[in-house]
Parts: sequence; C-alpha cells; structure tokens
Amino acid sequence: MTAPTWLYENFDPAGSAIGFRVTRKLDEVQSPFQKIEIYESTDWGNVMLIDGAMMVTTRDNFLYHEMVAHPALFTHADPKQVVIIGGGDCGTLREVLKHAGVQKAVQCDIDEQVTRMAEKYFPELCASNDDPRAELLFDDGIAYMANCAPGSLDIVVVDSTDPVGPAEGLFNKAFYESCFRALKDDGILVQQSESPLVHLDLINAMRAEMGKAGFATFQTLPFPQPCYPTGWWSCTLARKSGGFEFREADARAKAFKTKYYSADLHKGAQHLPPFVAEALGD
Amino acid sequence: MTAPTWLYENFDPAGSAIGFRVTRKLDEVQSPFQKIEIYESTDWGNVMLIDGAMMVTTRDNFLYHEMVAHPALFTHADPKQVVIIGGGDCGTLREVLKHAGVQKAVQCDIDEQVTRMAEKYFPELCASNDDPRAELLFDDGIAYMANCAPGSLDIVVVDSTDPVGPAEGLFNKAFYESCFRALKDDGILVQQSESPLVHLDLINAMRAEMGKAGFATFQTLPFPQPCYPTGWWSCTLARKSGGFEFREADARAKAFKTKYYSADLHKGAQHLPPFVAEALGD
Repeated sequence: MTAPTWLYENFDPAGSAIGFRVTRKLDEVQSPFQKIEIYESTDWGNVMLIDGAMMVTTRDNFLYHEMVAHPALFTHADPKQVVIIGGGDCGTLREVLKHAGVQKAVQCDIDEQVTRMAEKYFPELCASNDDPRAELLFDDGIAYMANCAPGSLDIVVVDSTDPVGPAEGLFNKAFYESCFRALKDDGILVQQSESPLVHLDLINAMRAEMGKAGFATFQTLPFPQPCYPTGWWSCTLARKSGGFEFREADARAKAFKTKYYSADLHKGAQHLPPFVAEALGD
Repeated sequence: MTAPTWLYENFDPAGSAIGFRVTRKLDEVQSPFQKIEIYESTDWGNVMLIDGAMMVTTRDNFLYHEMVAHPALFTHADPKQVVIIGGGDCGTLREVLKHAGVQKAVQCDIDEQVTRMAEKYFPELCASNDDPRAELLFDDGIAYMANCAPGSLDIVVVDSTDPVGPAEGLFNKAFYESCFRALKDDGILVQQSESPLVHLDLINAMRAEMGKAGFATFQTLPFPQPCYPTGWWSCTLARKSGGFEFREADARAKAFKTKYYSADLHKGAQHLPPFVAEALGD
C-alpha cells in the first residue's frame, strides 16, 4: 500500500479533465488493441482505463449501464433478440438480461482482455455472463453486424469507447447500414453518444450517418456519469420509423431493481434542455 | 501567452478531481475571507476558483444559475421580495431578475472581491447589477438574515461555497431559523446542496437542520454541473408547509430565454433517481 496519488484523464478535445484518488495500480495489460489499466481508488472502488481514458468505476458505472440498456428495452414492444457491440466489461449485458423477455443477448467485443479484466476486478458486472441466454464473442463488431441475418434483431446496443482507435468504425454509415439491415422493422439501435455539453457536433454527425443508413427517427437521452468527461453523458436511440413512446406501465412494474433508471427518470430524460434540443434540431 | 497547462481541483472528501486546460492566470487576490483566482482556459472561457475550488466557468455556469433560481421562483405563486445570500458572482441575481414580478432582489455576499472579479472577468453575469430592483450588499449573510423583518420575504436563495470556511454557518439550524422567520408563510428557501452522488449525507443533514428550524417540506433537484465535483449537483427547496407544484403554465410561457431550464426539465428533475430518493427518504 503506497500513499494515495491522483490519477487524471486529460480530455484534450474539450480541455477538461476528470480524476480519482488512487492507492495503487492493480493490473496493466497491453492487448492487441489497446492498453488496459486497473487502479484501486480510495472512494470509487476499482477504476478501469483504456488507453488512458476512464472507462468504468465500481461506484458510478450503474448510471451508464442502466441508461444504455433500459430506455431502449422499455421502448421496444417486446425485445427478444439483442446484440451488444463492445460492452466488454459486461455491465450492459447484465442490465439487458434483467429483462425476462430477452431470449438471447450476444455481446461482441473485439478485445477479450477487457472481459478478463472485468471478471477479475468488476465481478459484479459479470454476474450474468453464465446466463444461458448470454453469448460472449470476442470478435470484430463491424464484421459481426455485417454478417447478421437480415431482420433478425430487436435491439442493437453499441457500447463502445470514443470514436477514435478501435471504435472509430462504429460511428459511420457503413456500420449503421449493417445495423439497419440486421434489425427488424420495429428494431432499435442505441449507442453511447458522448457529452451533451461538449459533443453536440458529434451527436449531430452520428445522427446524420444513421440517417444516411436509413434510420428515420432519433432520441438522445442525457444522464450523469462522473467518470466521463464533463460528468454528463448521453445515449442516442434510432429507429427505422415511429416514435419513442415507451412501455411506461411495464417500466413501473419491472421485477428487477435499478439504482438510477425509473419510468419517471426515463420520461424526464426525454425532454432535452433547450440548448441541446436547439443544437440537435429536436 | 504560455503553453497551456492543466489546472485541477482535487476534491478530497470524495476522492475525485475536476480539471480544465488553462493558458494563463489572469488575476489573484487574497481577500479578508478567501483567495480568489481567475484563469483563462482553452475551452471553458474564464474560470474562477475560491480557495482552490472551481466556482464558475464562462461555459457551464448557466446550469447552476438557472437551476438555483427558476425552480424556486416558478414554484412560488408570486415572488416579489427575494434575498440571495452569497451569490457574489451575480449570476443568480441576473436569473432572479428575469422574473418581471420580482420587485426587489437583495444580494448579500460577505466578500466584495468576488463581485469585483465577476464584473471584470464574467461581465455577462453582472448584466443586471444596475437593475433598479437590485441591491448589492457586502456583508455577513448570517447577520443580514437574522436582522430581516419577520415575514418580509418570498424567496431566500443560499448560493454559497461548500460548507467549510466562510460558508459553514449557512448550513445550520441557527441560520435556517433566521430564514424561517424572515420568510412569509408561503415563502421558499432554496440552497445549493452539493452532489447527489457523493453528498447524500450532507443533503440529509441540511434537511434535518432545516426541519429543526421549522421547515416542513423539502425538494431536492439534481442537475449537471461539470465544474463541480462529480459533475452532478443539486439544489434543495424548503417550505414551511405545502408542496412543490410549480406554475407550469407560467414556466412554459416565460418571456425570457434559458439554456437549461424549461418547464419539462423542471418536471423531470422532480423525480429523483431511485437511489437518491431512497437515501433521502422521499
């Protein structure tokens, strides 16, 4: 045990930084794709960094994982077939599998090392990895989506790192075309979409690429996420047609616990702050 | 112009840090109460620190100032007499005075230097300082509230620094008793109440002290605030009796612009995330 020090992520594109007080580095591995580090912190449990960017802390990951999963799954009328692209820490998979109606959830992350690290340092996120409905693949998500049977999926969750490095190809028309083809007509694509304060251009660009691929309607939902730049994050849902009314009664009657998500939170998040709505043309 | 460097606030109580990339220090003054520093940043405009804690940036202060002002003013049936304790950067005063029905808004900050710095480096926040309805006092807010005429105020906004140092006395029963006495029966006390993620104990303690002073009903509203620890902040409203239904039609028809606040955002913020509601017993 050494004296605590401060570990920062300097987020150059926005000129802002996030940091945690850490006691020691627990692990580090250079995978074929990226450098993964695990630190023990004084107040946030374990912290995972990928290429120097904060990815997950024990304390605050529930915000992201609940919000990238439940709004989409409660918006779809009856989600059975789910694919998660990325999501190697397995937290999104765990949330998806809380929905009893889900028959199969495939998680396809390019980097097996992320999951091995999560199993060791975030075992609670991997609690559903042995669920018989779960399938964990370690493969290229772009190729996986391109090869999916047309019209076979209800939900695609893109739970990736930022649009640089390995995840860059998950933010363009070609990838979204694969998602569009693989989804049923009433399917939903949901993707983490960075900060509503500093990434409005990126959200607009994502929506434009999704639009070129055929998606017609969009919904961006903001939520707090202290370990990501600005502490304020979002996910964006896209559909081939139709709106984003959600199964509010089902969300209220859900048989599982959530810490951040609720039917009321979901309703509230659907109303964007005026400056965000204006920037997105909503 | 020197090369940009990173300026951090290490928030010891929660083991988390916030930082901005800055190009130079524009000013520094040691007032009788605290050290005030102003930095020029690459992406966030000017940044004010008090005793090393980030207070205001040009880019994100609208979140805090709108949320500490408008929910309380649209909850009160007809707010005319407003007192702001603290608030030396004048941003809350500006938001309060957007309400045409307000007849007088007194801002009482102990430290004149904060306002002098705001006038120089955040002039947009001081845009309403010359409003004939505004009165700027530089005095002890605890004494000011203790000497207010009983039943004379509609709204008291406590826009202070953290409950250490000069602001410590703004978080206890004695101060809240003064607020209670100065407010009319339908008056509202609203106070910044730190982070809903890491300060739930503090919010509970605040509510308990407010309760000892006679306040009977409470409402905590979360909102994003990147320059404060965790990037997620809150304000807490307290009333002598009655609930927190707000003038939704008036909020929708408001004649002034806001960037974050809207009637829908206000409604949404009234629904706390389950883990917050549970911790606060709401």
